[in-house]
Amino acid sequence: MGLTVGVVGATGAVGSKMIEILEERKLTIDKLRLFASQKSVGNTVDFRGEKIEVELLTEDAMKEKFDYLLFSAGGGVSEKYAPIAAEAGNTVVDNSSQWRMTEGIPLVVPEVNPHVLKGYQGIVANPNCSTIQMVVALAPLHKRYGIKRVVVSTYQAVSGSGHKAIVELQNQVQDENYPNKVYTKQIFANCIPHIDVFYDNGYTKEELKMVYETHKILEDDKIQVNATTVRIPVYYGHSESVYLEFNEAPEINEIKEILRNSPGVVLMDNPAENCYPTPREVANTDETYVGRIRKDLYNPNAVSLWVVADNLRKGAATNAIQIIEVMENYKR
Amino acid sequence: MGLTVGVVGATGAVGSKMIEILEERKLTIDKLRLFASQKSVGNTVDFRGEKIEVELLTEDAMKEKFDYLLFSAGGGVSEKYAPIAAEAGNTVVDNSSQWRMTEGIPLVVPEVNPHVLKGYQGIVANPNCSTIQMVVALAPLHKRYGIKRVVVSTYQAVSGSGHKAIVELQNQVQDENYPNKVYTKQIFANCIPHIDVFYDNGYTKEELKMVYETHKILEDDKIQVNATTVRIPVYYGHSESVYLEFNEAPEINEIKEILRNSPGVVLMDNPAENCYPTPREVANTDETYVGRIRKDLYNPNAVSLWVVADNLRKGAATNAIQIIEVMENYKR
Repeated sequence: MGLTVGVVGATGAVGSKMIEILEERKLTIDKLRLFASQKSVGNTVDFRGEKIEVELLTEDAMKEKFDYLLFSAGGGVSEKYAPIAAEAGNTVVDNSSQWRMTEGIPLVVPEVNPHVLKGYQGIVANPNCSTIQMVVALAPLHKRYGIKRVVVSTYQAVSGSGHKAIVELQNQVQDENYPNKVYTKQIFANCIPHIDVFYDNGYTKEELKMVYETHKILEDDKIQVNATTVRIPVYYGHSESVYLEFNEAPEINEIKEILRNSPGVVLMDNPAENCYPTPREVANTDETYVGRIRKDLYNPNAVSLWVVADNLRKGAATNAIQIIEVMENYKR
Repeated sequence: MGLTVGVVGATGAVGSKMIEILEERKLTIDKLRLFASQKSVGNTVDFRGEKIEVELLTEDAMKEKFDYLLFSAGGGVSEKYAPIAAEAGNTVVDNSSQWRMTEGIPLVVPEVNPHVLKGYQGIVANPNCSTIQMVVALAPLHKRYGIKRVVVSTYQAVSGSGHKAIVELQNQVQDENYPNKVYTKQIFANCIPHIDVFYDNGYTKEELKMVYETHKILEDDKIQVNATTVRIPVYYGHSESVYLEFNEAPEINEIKEILRNSPGVVLMDNPAENCYPTPREVANTDETYVGRIRKDLYNPNAVSLWVVADNLRKGAATNAIQIIEVMENYKR
């Protein structure tokens, strides 16, 4: 009665984390299969005491029977293989940006919009890391006050660029003249306001993901999101400085009360005791942490927040596996 | 006909940089005197081929005749000694926050409000590092369009906390378990949304400096500034993600043209060539760099900018010495 689960991109930073989280959580898994490109084939990965060999990703393999296939091998792989798997009747939870904005494909943060998964089968898109943690914090506040405008600046960890970027920073920590390959500039002792490609309007793709994915997940395209996404020399954990303008004036204590009772949120807000989240502190956990909540000095409808989460866990792998859990619950 | 200049706090991160910049620039200095607390007395510092011995800071020393005294030894030292020096007829350029908001004390960024120095003698306040670079970029835009609102998130280098903080980060780069003393949490591979002390309204002193110093320098207390100030693991150079709402709709090309022709600003904005400023690239220069200029997707009156400068130079020492240069020019 257990599940057959496949992980595509099993040796990457997110793929490895998915396997780790599948191990931790309570899903009953009968069979785990791991897929990657040729260069990783034959490697083995430990899973619940068993050694699992990495298989080559092929069209035929994707046509076999899986309850769930977790994809995290880049947009190109998802574009090609996810439809083949879905066509064969498999449910795909795709971590790439390939299918997120496609109409009819659910884009899901389980704490926010699980209902779109009810009775669904096919490709499900896992949102962008910086969007996930932001909407976990925003959704309950949007419900209560209505969000008119969001101005967000991010402080993103290198693990968001994959394993190679972690190694690049580690090497630069050892030798600050170690050349940059993943990033356009050296990331050690620097910060780079450039994540993903630039568009003609001056925004990066990462910034526009935060706009349009937020609209899709919160089911409200009137929210005026303005994002600046920045890479900083942190290994794990994205932070976000978020300015929110509501349609009405909120009470700070009520905001705290709402967040304290919101699923997946941990309120960490007591400046007097230096209590506010930082990425090092929240790495390796699954929640979204909110602190530094304060009213704007001029606009009674506006507040600022500081939002931190582990980008590989809640921002990617945990969210994907929570999607499976939601779908399994709906089947019961 | 040269000047007699004293540096108080001569062995600190900003004090040392002041001496370096006095050496580089064209002021004619007949005599440089260096002051510090007991533990640095007797140390020598090279200045234009001469070895200058550090003297003990005393009330009597401050009553001697100086053309300019540069203070950078913390608010307490400035509170006590700057008035003594000013009373004796000396002009003090004070880098601490002690006198910045005092009525009658000029708070000056030479590119922005040099006129307040005309005919002035006494204590002059050097603004906060993160405020200086922001107003250098904002002043010409405020003049043209009128700024209604600023939402700024900062990415600040550890050198802003002094030499001890640079050493703390260096030590943590070598050994990530090296204990934090300067900061509340480990700064290596982390970011900390806490600079200077917290106030009851939830803001830090650093954040409120960015509000009220901006008002004083731009001579307009209607600008609605919202700041979140964050320390990141960078040694030199502060970066700022700035969202600006104007009173009218600007043209991006006109903004670029204005900034290209503004004193102290370097436009560095060509995303197609990965041209945008980062702190490592602009460290050791005196300009304020602006890139990532783009229109808000929803509000025709709003734009975003990315502003970077060397916090020890333009954010502190260079600005202080430019103040002396302006005062000398007014005397001619």
